Amino acid sequence: MHITIQRDTLIQAIQDVAKAVSSRTTIPILTGIKLEAHGDGMTLTGSDTEISIERTIYAEENGTSYVTVHRAGSVVLNARFFGDIVKKLPTDEVIIEVSPNFMTRIQSGTAEFHLNGLDSDEFPRLPQVDGGQQFRLPADLLRSMIRQTSFAVAVQETRPVLTGVNFSADKGILTCVSTDSHRLALRRAQFETENEISFQNVIVPGKSLNELSKLLGDGHVDVTITNQQILFKMKHVLFFSRLLDGNYPDTSRLIPEEYRTAVRMNAKELLQAIDRASLLAREDRNNVIKFAAEGTTAVEISSHSPEVGKVSEQVSILSLEGEELKISFNSKYMMDALKALDATDIEIQFTGSIRPFILHPVDQDNVLQLILPVRTA
Amino acid sequence: MHITIQRDTLIQAIQDVAKAVSSRTTIPILTGIKLEAHGDGMTLTGSDTEISIERTIYAEENGTSYVTVHRAGSVVLNARFFGDIVKKLPTDEVIIEVSPNFMTRIQSGTAEFHLNGLDSDEFPRLPQVDGGQQFRLPADLLRSMIRQTSFAVAVQETRPVLTGVNFSADKGILTCVSTDSHRLALRRAQFETENEISFQNVIVPGKSLNELSKLLGDGHVDVTITNQQILFKMKHVLFFSRLLDGNYPDTSRLIPEEYRTAVRMNAKELLQAIDRASLLAREDRNNVIKFAAEGTTAVEISSHSPEVGKVSEQVSILSLEGEELKISFNSKYMMDALKALDATDIEIQFTGSIRPFILHPVDQDNVLQLILPVRTA
Repeated sequence: MHITIQRDTLIQAIQDVAKAVSSRTTIPILTGIKLEAHGDGMTLTGSDTEISIERTIYAEENGTSYVTVHRAGSVVLNARFFGDIVKKLPTDEVIIEVSPNFMTRIQSGTAEFHLNGLDSDEFPRLPQVDGGQQFRLPADLLRSMIRQTSFAVAVQETRPVLTGVNFSADKGILTCVSTDSHRLALRRAQFETENEISFQNVIVPGKSLNELSKLLGDGHVDVTITNQQILFKMKHVLFFSRLLDGNYPDTSRLIPEEYRTAVRMNAKELLQAIDRASLLAREDRNNVIKFAAEGTTAVEISSHSPEVGKVSEQVSILSLEGEELKISFNSKYMMDALKALDATDIEIQFTGSIRPFILHPVDQDNVLQLILPVRTA
Repeated sequence: MHITIQRDTLIQAIQDVAKAVSSRTTIPILTGIKLEAHGDGMTLTGSDTEISIERTIYAEENGTSYVTVHRAGSVVLNARFFGDIVKKLPTDEVIIEVSPNFMTRIQSGTAEFHLNGLDSDEFPRLPQVDGGQQFRLPADLLRSMIRQTSFAVAVQETRPVLTGVNFSADKGILTCVSTDSHRLALRRAQFETENEISFQNVIVPGKSLNELSKLLGDGHVDVTITNQQILFKMKHVLFFSRLLDGNYPDTSRLIPEEYRTAVRMNAKELLQAIDRASLLAREDRNNVIKFAAEGTTAVEISSHSPEVGKVSEQVSILSLEGEELKISFNSKYMMDALKALDATDIEIQFTGSIRPFILHPVDQDNVLQLILPVRTA
């Protein structure tokens, strides 16, 4: 392998695939990035057991030359050293040349590195995703579906399926659901497909989705789902993730269909008031704050810590429908939910102070957040 | 105590004094900031055993009102909670009112906090710095003297005096020296005083100087030195630091007065080449890189790690005077020194490959960096 490549293009490509390289593995080949020069340009690949990312740099695009392949071939280089070195090279043009023993010369200006490389035949193969269900989504829609649900996956692995976001599709509607059993996030979207697509129980690890989210640009994403893998195909990037084994719980029956109290208010004002109240709720109070809806003009947000002090604040509301109510909940869950709703005005629907309550944007039901309250004395 | 104060002014003042509040102490009063409202406005104080910072907010300055004192008094509030709360208050105007039991009401818009306060009589007194030697320095000069020396203090406390910067003054010249016994940084400056000032062995903890540096604005600083304390007096801030006990070593005899090799080169080009070479010198090589001056056009910077690979780079020089030379040194020390010199072109003077060498800006000797080389096989 022998190529001449633009430094900044190479830096970006290394950053993209490095998201799939584990820093904690002790298997040398898995600490590496695979470089492959071929007729179309160059391909970089990073892989751990969960995620694989393949990034292609085409020789030429829109009349600009990004990489010149003098001799095809491949090598695996340590991701950290290779990445650090390329970032600090002195000139825009970088020459990479691999010897038969995989010793790799990286030259830029008068600086010359020789890195010990590894045989790319030892590098893990990419997962096979032949067949499977396929559909296409706008990249920005997928990004917002991830942002609105992935934060609510379980962190602890006591029930592994809950560490993922459950994707399902039926009748032209794609649904993402996540829950850590204290709260739930749901986002639905219409999508167009050539064939009728229907699937359920496709559980993508939250960690994979967070990494994917950083790679989503403009344009669209082609999604392929097989039994064990999901592939997100973008213009220059293939992103593979393992799916989680097991059955995702039926969350539909958790969501109350009726309510006894509905409060409409400005999301940002509520978020800021809860943020302030949570300052005193952090440590000994386990983030629990109180919410009292007892009039038609404002709700009271309050919190009390015997050691530190107390706080209370009136937040004006747009409307109160139904019964008055006092309820306590985890302020972090509420702040996460309010940020995820991404709306100016929201409605909160309660069915009593010890029942789960839901939030959604006023006059919109394609996104929903559910929170379990905390019982207080 | 009862005041109305501008939120942003208060945020800034809290940040300033919080630098002196230890987060690790278990003594409640030392986790606090003392607030005092008086005839001139308001004073905030933070203090640990090493540093005390007093910040005054005058009632009015340049026609702008910053604080209105309705009732004089004082209280001590937990620095972290108070700081976090004030930062998140909803309106520009903040009312603070202290009850006789030190319960403190903080009100802003419809948000109302009640914080448990402490009796300010329990708060440590500020050090006494009556008498002592006094002089005045431009703030930017003091900042650059700190920046050029404080990085080279010892981190380990095996010889406590080396964790400080040694200040001395004689014949209108102020000198700062620091060394961790592997390298040394020295900065001299002329300064004007009304009386003849002469002192030596004034050892200020490096940590204190780093905190002071963040508070130095424009204008000038009045410095007062007593046996155990140094006071830096700025327009709104008093900064007290304990001095280190003990005798600072005589460093003047460490600095070679002659040289056998002198190389002049661009500081930035050398810094970047050493930064690159250090990428392979980090772990198993303990940051050691090689420097070879064997011609009149360039020096070679190189490094070799059996596990990772090797790197070499030619860096052009302005001149080589004297003998050819190969030497090895810690790349981190060299990079620190080059950054501290703050010069376009520098001269490095060597007296052999196992002797300390010095760096200074070409045609300037008010700043000097010394580094001990590393013996390699």
